[in-house]
Amino acid sequence: MKKTALAVGASLLLATTAWAMKPNNEPIQPIEPAVITDPQKVELGKMLFFEPRLSKSGFISCNSCHNLSTGGSDNLPTSIGHNWQEGPINAPTVLNSSMNLAQFWDGRAADLKEQAAGPIANPIEMAFSHTLAVEVLQSIPQYRELFKAVYGTDEITIDHVTDAIAAFEETLVTPNSRFDQWLRGDENALTKTELEGYQLFKSIGCVACHYGPAVGGASFQKMGLVEPYQTTNPSQGVAGLTGKDADRFLFKVPTLRNVELTYPYFHDGAYWRLEDAVDVMARLQLGRKLSDEEIGKIVAFLKTLTGEQPQITLPILPPSTNDTPRPQPFG
Amino acid sequence: MKKTALAVGASLLLATTAWAMKPNNEPIQPIEPAVITDPQKVELGKMLFFEPRLSKSGFISCNSCHNLSTGGSDNLPTSIGHNWQEGPINAPTVLNSSMNLAQFWDGRAADLKEQAAGPIANPIEMAFSHTLAVEVLQSIPQYRELFKAVYGTDEITIDHVTDAIAAFEETLVTPNSRFDQWLRGDENALTKTELEGYQLFKSIGCVACHYGPAVGGASFQKMGLVEPYQTTNPSQGVAGLTGKDADRFLFKVPTLRNVELTYPYFHDGAYWRLEDAVDVMARLQLGRKLSDEEIGKIVAFLKTLTGEQPQITLPILPPSTNDTPRPQPFG
Repeated sequence: MKKTALAVGASLLLATTAWAMKPNNEPIQPIEPAVITDPQKVELGKMLFFEPRLSKSGFISCNSCHNLSTGGSDNLPTSIGHNWQEGPINAPTVLNSSMNLAQFWDGRAADLKEQAAGPIANPIEMAFSHTLAVEVLQSIPQYRELFKAVYGTDEITIDHVTDAIAAFEETLVTPNSRFDQWLRGDENALTKTELEGYQLFKSIGCVACHYGPAVGGASFQKMGLVEPYQTTNPSQGVAGLTGKDADRFLFKVPTLRNVELTYPYFHDGAYWRLEDAVDVMARLQLGRKLSDEEIGKIVAFLKTLTGEQPQITLPILPPSTNDTPRPQPFG
Repeated sequence: MKKTALAVGASLLLATTAWAMKPNNEPIQPIEPAVITDPQKVELGKMLFFEPRLSKSGFISCNSCHNLSTGGSDNLPTSIGHNWQEGPINAPTVLNSSMNLAQFWDGRAADLKEQAAGPIANPIEMAFSHTLAVEVLQSIPQYRELFKAVYGTDEITIDHVTDAIAAFEETLVTPNSRFDQWLRGDENALTKTELEGYQLFKSIGCVACHYGPAVGGASFQKMGLVEPYQTTNPSQGVAGLTGKDADRFLFKVPTLRNVELTYPYFHDGAYWRLEDAVDVMARLQLGRKLSDEEIGKIVAFLKTLTGEQPQITLPILPPSTNDTPRPQPFG
């Protein structure tokens, strides 16, 4: 809790100043390709990311809601969990999520490792327990070998599981978008309209929150600064953790990388059209009513933020054994 | 219906004679690697196989129940469908399914193309409609281009959709298992126990039904020939189609390729241990009570049928547009 509150405070300070200090004078920096230092751990993490046996039903994996075929998201307003339960909030993309200052919309997990532990044990998501998840993996000799090779011990722990998943997720970056090509000096990478959209994005103040390599993810901000955000979604943001009125509707600013792929938008997933999302943001956060032409330009710019999607070879998962606890899809 | 009934009749005749006629005198033949003649169609089919927008919820794809990470199956007794509805029967593996004489346990689809149309529109599976599925694809320019390139027309049809899915599924073969290496002459590919298991498998009569490259899939047979099969599953097999008492519990013989990966077993998914499945089959189909040692040998042989799993690069799916009908996960 303390860490989160500090992070929030620091990030608010940072938000208005950080981008102005970057050497290339642009508030957005290119995404660097992933540097893989421990390929065995990343491969193990990939298996676990696609592992439905980390759920009670044996049906839901990390990839179910953070689908790497669809921008690392499920493209649903809120997610489908165990027994078709409806999740409380829009599933954020896993792509470039290692760049976030904290994880979850309210930042309640300090990092990807801490985040990964959440859904496994959440009764409305994967509905399993850490103990059972580990028991499943421990019952499968191939997993025992892989964990041993990476962590040097015969005993698998949830700490290893989430560490490996996080190591895989850290590789899920999307470099070389057209915008990044432009940032790196290719003047022909953007059209005139897209460039005008970027200029507008800067001049009207979007960059106050959407800056850095992830074009967001670096601060918490109040949703509905100038005008309140109307929603039926009960999420209170950081206030849900701190209980403080001042933190109501304070959410981590989402990345705009690959935003074309990660509809529907906002923590409640209420807006499907990127045009509408831009319109709402300009009005509620900046007190500005944009023309359709201005919105079109900004949307054109935003679509240049779609980067190279991670090329994933589907992992082949080792079979359960006679000792593996069985899934309980309908139990 | 007529075609199915004929296929059933013909296959029953075939079952006892076909394998004896094979040139190498073995009732099982090696699996040949897939020959891809139309890579564009296969790639499109792969996208559709992983496409959750072919379901009402936007959450379920072919790969949800025929998971290529887990032997082309979901490793559940019966599958989870829209709104977490429980399917009526065990999802057969998609691996090597092109070798089946017909599709579904009761053979009600003549081929993979016909099969692929079923789950999309089945209200307890993907719960969509063919019209809506096509409407979704048609609204996405990248799909329009891909279908145009493959089928030469601007108008996507469900026929194209299922044709492309089937073309992809035809590539999902698992060649080069240790057993196939042995069949091709590598005498060291099998251990003594595995080879003894194979000899038993032949001598006690398993090969009467489990023959050919798929080690099954080539005939319909009555489940519970010698002794009735006890199950709470209401499926009637081919009788569900023909209404004939004689067709009660007549099911397509499942492939034993990759059987180590495709638990739980039988049309009701009631048996998780391969040992138990072998025991039940020997008693009910062959009137033979095997010793634990015999079962162990046959299981050792069966595990040599695990072949090279298809290496799948996860497709990147094109985003929906403002015109794309929206998923209705909870509607």
